Amino acid sequence: MKSFRKELWFNVPRRRGFINITSQVEEALRESGVSEGLILVNAMHITASVFINDDESGLHADYDEWLERLAPHAPTSQYRHNLTGEDNADAHMKRQVMGREVVVAVTGGKLDFGPWEQIFYGEFDGRRQKRVLVKIIGE
Amino acid sequence: MKSFRKELWFNVPRRRGFINITSQVEEALRESGVSEGLILVNAMHITASVFINDDESGLHADYDEWLERLAPHAPTSQYRHNLTGEDNADAHMKRQVMGREVVVAVTGGKLDFGPWEQIFYGEFDGRRQKRVLVKIIGE
Amino acid sequence: MKSFRKELWFNVPRRRGFINITSQVEEALRESGVSEGLILVNAMHITASVFINDDESGLHADYDEWLERLAPHAPTSQYRHNLTGEDNADAHMKRQVMGREVVVAVTGGKLDFGPWEQIFYGEFDGRRQKRVLVKIIGE
Repeated sequence: MKSFRKELWFNVPRRRGFINITSQVEEALRESGVSEGLILVNAMHITASVFINDDESGLHADYDEWLERLAPHAPTSQYRHNLTGEDNADAHMKRQVMGREVVVAVTGGKLDFGPWEQIFYGEFDGRRQKRVLVKIIGE
Repeated sequence: MKSFRKELWFNVPRRRGFINITSQVEEALRESGVSEGLILVNAMHITASVFINDDESGLHADYDEWLERLAPHAPTSQYRHNLTGEDNADAHMKRQVMGREVVVAVTGGKLDFGPWEQIFYGEFDGRRQKRVLVKIIGE
Repeated sequence: MKSFRKELWFNVPRRRGFINITSQVEEALRESGVSEGLILVNAMHITASVFINDDESGLHADYDEWLERLAPHAPTSQYRHNLTGEDNADAHMKRQVMGREVVVAVTGGKLDFGPWEQIFYGEFDGRRQKRVLVKIIGE
């Protein structure tokens, strides 16, 4: 069994944003030399997500509005977590809706994807360096 | 290490619906010959889910109503994604709540499940052929 | 390839609660002898979650309130599932928001975590014995 590990770094300049990281994950897969197996891609921070969906800017704007409706950022005083000096309680909730991680099949050395599947980093508390872990096992 | 791949096809006749796919996943597991490992089951489309919960029709009706409340289909004009000519922005949201994939332990050649766990395909934009991927690794 | 399986048991004395299970998962990992691979941790019950987030009590209170707002327990008559004699339909929804499972990379014999990542059992219908499955594959 082979195993491979790589960290990807991101710095989203605003509080929230979505970055298509598919090509970076594909590059890690090529580096790994794994042709059959599983690939785990997860946010290493608890106010960010990794998820699979469509690369369409209108949808991303919809996601942002929808997540704000489900877990509004303001007023920050509505959350007990923010009494610790943070203002990011909403980000911990948005991340649960969108998910921490994806697991993707590796077949024939490629991400085994449907036609529209793309991997995104979802940032809900940005403006600083944050990491995504790529772990690949197989042979 | 063994690896095995199979696609399952579904055509839900309405926009939304839930299908119990546990027996089809178990059949794939038998075909794989894997007795210890992990099984990934994921929607290959971005407006559908694979999730694990209870096979109870009342609960499925509750899920449907609840997801409509969290991310209503109409008016379709409320979503920017629908400006692309689609009317399925809500389906992209419902799928994030219910999840893209499940990973299940394989022990002794069987799905290592609690008493009520069943695997479902969740369709949020149906009336066409769509796929689920089953990938199994182990030995 | 090595594989390892362990069940963890919990009995949350109230309907809802969050338990940090990171050290128990780490102990299972040590017992497994796996140094490179993947670890799956999943609720074996369909009204409970396993998720990764922050070990901060204010955040947990925020999660509890937020999930009650997204899927209220009462009135129990609002859910068709409860016509079966259950009163836990809301728990089946809360569990979908928080997720059934996490998959964590194992690197150098340790959980390959970011600085704040901790694993939680999320109970939404407690006051009885319930199980979490830990499955580890690798070498």
